Amino acid sequence: MNGVYHYQKLEHYCAALLEKAGVPGAEATVIAESLVQADLRGVDSHGVIRTDIYLKRLKAGMVAVDGEMKAHTDGPVTVLDGGNHFGAVVGSRALELAEEGTKRNGVAVVGVKGSNHFGTCSYYLLKAIAKDMILLVLSNASQTMPPTGGVRPFIGTNPFAVGVPAGRHQPFILDMATSVVARGKIIAAAQAGESIPLGWAIDKDGNPTTDANAALAGSVLPVGGAKGYGISMFVDILSGVLTGAGFGKYVNNMYENWEQTQNVGHFFIGLDIARFMPVQQFKDRMDLYIDEIKAEPKAPGVSEIFIPGELEHRMSLERMKTGIVLPSRVEGELRFWGEQYGLQLSDALLTPASTA
Amino acid sequence: MNGVYHYQKLEHYCAALLEKAGVPGAEATVIAESLVQADLRGVDSHGVIRTDIYLKRLKAGMVAVDGEMKAHTDGPVTVLDGGNHFGAVVGSRALELAEEGTKRNGVAVVGVKGSNHFGTCSYYLLKAIAKDMILLVLSNASQTMPPTGGVRPFIGTNPFAVGVPAGRHQPFILDMATSVVARGKIIAAAQAGESIPLGWAIDKDGNPTTDANAALAGSVLPVGGAKGYGISMFVDILSGVLTGAGFGKYVNNMYENWEQTQNVGHFFIGLDIARFMPVQQFKDRMDLYIDEIKAEPKAPGVSEIFIPGELEHRMSLERMKTGIVLPSRVEGELRFWGEQYGLQLSDALLTPASTA
Repeated sequence: MNGVYHYQKLEHYCAALLEKAGVPGAEATVIAESLVQADLRGVDSHGVIRTDIYLKRLKAGMVAVDGEMKAHTDGPVTVLDGGNHFGAVVGSRALELAEEGTKRNGVAVVGVKGSNHFGTCSYYLLKAIAKDMILLVLSNASQTMPPTGGVRPFIGTNPFAVGVPAGRHQPFILDMATSVVARGKIIAAAQAGESIPLGWAIDKDGNPTTDANAALAGSVLPVGGAKGYGISMFVDILSGVLTGAGFGKYVNNMYENWEQTQNVGHFFIGLDIARFMPVQQFKDRMDLYIDEIKAEPKAPGVSEIFIPGELEHRMSLERMKTGIVLPSRVEGELRFWGEQYGLQLSDALLTPASTA
Repeated sequence: MNGVYHYQKLEHYCAALLEKAGVPGAEATVIAESLVQADLRGVDSHGVIRTDIYLKRLKAGMVAVDGEMKAHTDGPVTVLDGGNHFGAVVGSRALELAEEGTKRNGVAVVGVKGSNHFGTCSYYLLKAIAKDMILLVLSNASQTMPPTGGVRPFIGTNPFAVGVPAGRHQPFILDMATSVVARGKIIAAAQAGESIPLGWAIDKDGNPTTDANAALAGSVLPVGGAKGYGISMFVDILSGVLTGAGFGKYVNNMYENWEQTQNVGHFFIGLDIARFMPVQQFKDRMDLYIDEIKAEPKAPGVSEIFIPGELEHRMSLERMKTGIVLPSRVEGELRFWGEQYGLQLSDALLTPASTA
């Protein structure tokens, strides 16, 4: 049976691992907070499962924990060189710059190069929403999807994300990969011996396939065909081509490339609601909009209409109470690193383990 | 047999109709240019087919041709009240403000309310690209798609568009409706007695359907399920909720509502490439990116990999030479309006008609 972990204890544990490995305390906390928040929200692919690869990259000297990040701000535009720090650290600095610039100018853009995998975009959206800002966050990623008509991975599942505050309602949080589905769903189908719907993936020769194993040897497809391909390219252009970061094949794979830094790029756009209308008026309009959507007649079998981010918010409240269940492999990895640094993973359990 | 029209003559003809109906000359030219450009690019749904409804709205007093548009600019942020002018006129003013603001500040956002159907987003993208700008254009639209889990239309097929200059290559032009397909494709399937793929639409009770007629009585679906629904909402929030324009059901249908103005909202974001890197360096990076995508191995049956906007550009060059073919219904409408104003549609033929 897998352990059930308390989110705060798990965050402390992961932060402690990172700190023991040489990450400054405040930065270790930011990284761990980002990972555990993803687990809380049900985005397990971006949760503490990443702790192991982050620590391996650090030990291999592929991520920096010292040296400075250089920002150049000219009015509402900032270009930030992340200096190859951990992505969550670079992203958090970009967020600060976007918040300051938005407050000062009404709008701010922050283009980021020299970064790494930065967790979920929602992590930054939630912080901006708490300051009554609208925030767009884009990031490129290493190659996983073919262009429309192609065979092999060329673009990443480059996420596109937008966060907007509401009033009585939970905020609008759109945080989407530009693929049809997460690769994890294809892995799950393969493990269960099930087929996948046509349109999710192509095999290694570029043929459409419903065979999950053939799909894993091939590529997951962009969402909505040419539309998802276009959105993914747009994200790559702003995050990578424009900022000076990598793009396409020049964004290096965190799991496979141990010779080069990732050089991931991000792009943040902040908007100050108060420059358009009083914040309370805007929130009232958002609440009306959300009220009206949620009151729409429902299709057969549908119990509720959700707005983007609503399910993740509910999951988060639930997992704060009931805890986070980790796969055995992830438990093993976290336990392994704890042994190196004299830390006990069992200290992070929701209910302290009884002696067996 | 349908007539084949010369794009410039057709533009002059439509501009002349609008001018006779009371639209100031420069504005009539902008509207006609936007419509004919859509026909050239193969986006017939946004072409001169719209002339008839534009003229009807004007005659019915539902669109203004005088009164001023009020812009309030504070640094890089402008809020523009379009004063219910034609959408292409309002959109063109928004573009000018975005261009000026981007040059001055490095980034500019223009939120627009009090507008109407403004044609294709590409019309504005192409002009911005010619000035070495990156431009994002969003617009909301009247209700056509249900939210995920819903039954009846609530959100529009709100377009999301991005234009980016390249060097040797044609620019990147992503201009996408947030629906799976244009409703026109379902109409075509119904007329041909063909079924449609599952996932394009739901029937009037909210059930998935492959029956084109049942789909027409129901709703077209957002692209990529919940992802397209989320993007459409995001476009509505920035274009409508934030600007003070209509949103959701408050964006009035141009064909059905003859009591109220449309109150469409738009949102423009301009970026000055030169604030990030020298423009030539950026264009070289874009060319490298596009070279590499187009050189990718191709899936079986694929002859070429395209970037967004490339096919439309080729279509445009072709139609400039071979002319624009209009459906009989559109010819009839344009001829009807010409008769009211003493204009001959046959003057716009590619090859002057021989006497029959």
